[in-house]
Amino acid sequence: MRLATFRRHSDEPHVRQVGLVLGQGDHLRVHPFDAGFDLVELLAESPEWRDSQADVAAAKDGLALDDIVLLPPVYPVAMRDFLTFEAHVDGMERGHGNPGPPAEWYDAPVFLFMAPHAVTGPYDDVAMPPDTERLDFELEIAAIVCRDVRDVTPEQARAAIGGYCVMNDWSARDVQGKEMRLKLGPSKGKDFATTIGPWVVTADELDGCRDEDGFLDLEMSVKVNDERVGGDRSGHMGWSFEQLVSHASRASWVKAGEVLASGTCSTGSLAEAWGRTGSLTPPPLQVGDVVEMTIERLGTIRNTVVAGEEPVAAVAPARRRVREEV
Amino acid sequence: MRLATFRRHSDEPHVRQVGLVLGQGDHLRVHPFDAGFDLVELLAESPEWRDSQADVAAAKDGLALDDIVLLPPVYPVAMRDFLTFEAHVDGMERGHGNPGPPAEWYDAPVFLFMAPHAVTGPYDDVAMPPDTERLDFELEIAAIVCRDVRDVTPEQARAAIGGYCVMNDWSARDVQGKEMRLKLGPSKGKDFATTIGPWVVTADELDGCRDEDGFLDLEMSVKVNDERVGGDRSGHMGWSFEQLVSHASRASWVKAGEVLASGTCSTGSLAEAWGRTGSLTPPPLQVGDVVEMTIERLGTIRNTVVAGEEPVAAVAPARRRVREEV
Repeated sequence: MRLATFRRHSDEPHVRQVGLVLGQGDHLRVHPFDAGFDLVELLAESPEWRDSQADVAAAKDGLALDDIVLLPPVYPVAMRDFLTFEAHVDGMERGHGNPGPPAEWYDAPVFLFMAPHAVTGPYDDVAMPPDTERLDFELEIAAIVCRDVRDVTPEQARAAIGGYCVMNDWSARDVQGKEMRLKLGPSKGKDFATTIGPWVVTADELDGCRDEDGFLDLEMSVKVNDERVGGDRSGHMGWSFEQLVSHASRASWVKAGEVLASGTCSTGSLAEAWGRTGSLTPPPLQVGDVVEMTIERLGTIRNTVVAGEEPVAAVAPARRRVREEV
Repeated sequence: MRLATFRRHSDEPHVRQVGLVLGQGDHLRVHPFDAGFDLVELLAESPEWRDSQADVAAAKDGLALDDIVLLPPVYPVAMRDFLTFEAHVDGMERGHGNPGPPAEWYDAPVFLFMAPHAVTGPYDDVAMPPDTERLDFELEIAAIVCRDVRDVTPEQARAAIGGYCVMNDWSARDVQGKEMRLKLGPSKGKDFATTIGPWVVTADELDGCRDEDGFLDLEMSVKVNDERVGGDRSGHMGWSFEQLVSHASRASWVKAGEVLASGTCSTGSLAEAWGRTGSLTPPPLQVGDVVEMTIERLGTIRNTVVAGEEPVAAVAPARRRVREEV
């Protein structure tokens, strides 16, 4: 089942409604659930109950994509981004002059918390952030958590994953590179936009897409201005999403409404190519570029880079103080 | 004005109520606001309106601390931790064999997003996390955001900061150290507990505590088992909280209910001493240790380290895959 969050063009900007997605291409329609349905709560219900409610929605008139704005399917209560594709880490490390992934990469799946308020809709324009000449994309697959869990095994974690979607973790590589010298990871280099969508495909719908180890194995690809620039398979993740949830839940809460993302797949960003070749080829994204990402069974997100509004002035450099003992 | 979040011992575990804190020491009492009051909304109101509501609460019977559990004053919608104390960065960098803060530290205040579900109350026990032999604390001051802002100047940001509290960003240094080799910052090394409290002191109450540049200048100190082990002044931050909000808001949302923290003050963690001296002196925290942090005007948080429950097993190492072109 495909579940979208949307508003009609005539709705107030704060309106969010959940819809059932049926059909394909020009025949695709979004059939509204009754107001009050929450997408994450629907994911937590049994497939049978969800089906019964979907039957009610399907019986109503569907809306064409032209009639609505698709919103981010969820506004995450927290968002974690992992680093699970070995070949991507390999390329990035080579860019830093290292021979390949450090030994620590293989031990456990590291992650960072992302800017939860930066999510944008699947077809929204993305504004060029300030201070960058190296705007990049990151092709990722994301899981939506539908139950609160803590200290769960991968097997137990499976029931906590409600569905999956496509994600583009937009990144300003020059900003990020400076910030990461402080060892805390990126901050302003990644907090301006994270595209998720186009909708959530429920986990039960993808049971047939798992490999012999239970890893979800879907083809992923990215185009810039209609030209394919990269792609991979989600089966190349070093850990399954169930393992990611289990790891995150060790002595810590993972909560309903969280989004956990795979990290960039191999060739799913420009920076990996820059790292491997030592040159800015393909070139950084410019205003007017269109980035389109498709994951098999999950759908396509497509966004145009537009000029940003004038930002507030950068803050002054640090005030230097000689520390006095207190 | 001091505003606390609490529940009575007889309340259901999910109950949260806001209270006005009056008095000191044994005479301290928490006077409940009517149910339905939200702490962040109260911070966003005018001082005059807040005072009028506080008068109503003050007229009711106050509760002694023995009658209640103080909860984290807010459950953050997002939590950012900065790195604003030059002398702390200096000590940590020396631990990595570097001569001092990198030049990038002075340019702009970097931050990371923290685990928002890990906040714990001001007197709660803290469970020893798994896999660590180097548990540490971090003495920080935190601001609570009460309005949604984007692209605001430091001057405009002032109205978005509702109040301040003490924060202990508990850290497992050995776990964190391994994770940070992947360049994304810490993940499991810091996601098990972040203590905030004991309550929020409203920003207007602290107007007299600013230095000539407008930086909040409060004495901060930390004791382990009643022995003072470190301290600093918030005036030694490289940027004011207003500058931190302004920086975070550049081309990005900072939302009501967010918590923004200063990062560790100098001598406000054991790791800084370890970095400076090259030895584990003072020793890492052990079960039974009591960590007490006090910030002038803001109050004291006090937590005992207790044994953790048996965690779920660690996930398997990464599945290695030779990448096939797709």
